[in-house]
Amino acid sequence: MPGHLLVVPKRSDVPRLADLTAEEVADLFLAVQRAQKVTEVHFSCSASTVSVQDGAAAGRTIEHVHVHVLPRSEGDFANNDDIYEELAKHDKGNDVKWRSQDEMVQEAAAMRQTADKLM
Amino acid sequence: MPGHLLVVPKRSDVPRLADLTAEEVADLFLAVQRAQKVTEVHFSCSASTVSVQDGAAAGRTIEHVHVHVLPRSEGDFANNDDIYEELAKHDKGNDVKWRSQDEMVQEAAAMRQTADKLM
Repeated sequence: MPGHLLVVPKRSDVPRLADLTAEEVADLFLAVQRAQKVTEVHFSCSASTVSVQDGAAAGRTIEHVHVHVLPRSEGDFANNDDIYEELAKHDKGNDVKWRSQDEMVQEAAAMRQTADKLM
Repeated sequence: MPGHLLVVPKRSDVPRLADLTAEEVADLFLAVQRAQKVTEVHFSCSASTVSVQDGAAAGRTIEHVHVHVLPRSEGDFANNDDIYEELAKHDKGNDVKWRSQDEMVQEAAAMRQTADKLM
């Protein structure tokens, strides 16, 4: 999905939100707040889904805490909450059409331009 | 679902995460981190789902920013990601069996005892 970002702490191998220091929690979600602002302007959206699958039993498949940020528009999914099924599937590898590295690099560059204008 | 919490900023009528100050964002997600710790101990869980439906187009139905925290266990839902369908339905009123006010007050009191032991 275009604009689907992961916001990830720089410190590596931190499995859970609980393993982050207070400063890192604050920094992570301030980065989420900034990422939302940029994606919503860039994709002309009025909402975002912000989600952490915090632990294996919550559906996390990567052993490092990360926050999903997805720009949302009215009617972007036939059923508004189909997004969660897509989110659940996205890293499972089944029938997922990944964007190419090039496409993602281009998107990141374009979003960075939007960010530079805003901040 | 037992242990399903909403973490809510004290300042009222704040529609979006973007409307929170940096201090409020930090405080909100530090409260989430604490809420996760208590719920996971209280319900003997090893994971949590943390989710913000940030804006109407993201499925939010209450005009005040709130963070869902749900304790998760392996096998708690037949399909791990059915939780998102339940999350989507929970405030829509269709076929939802609400817990009574008394049940929720009792749960909150029991969880507070766990919190007092931990903190």
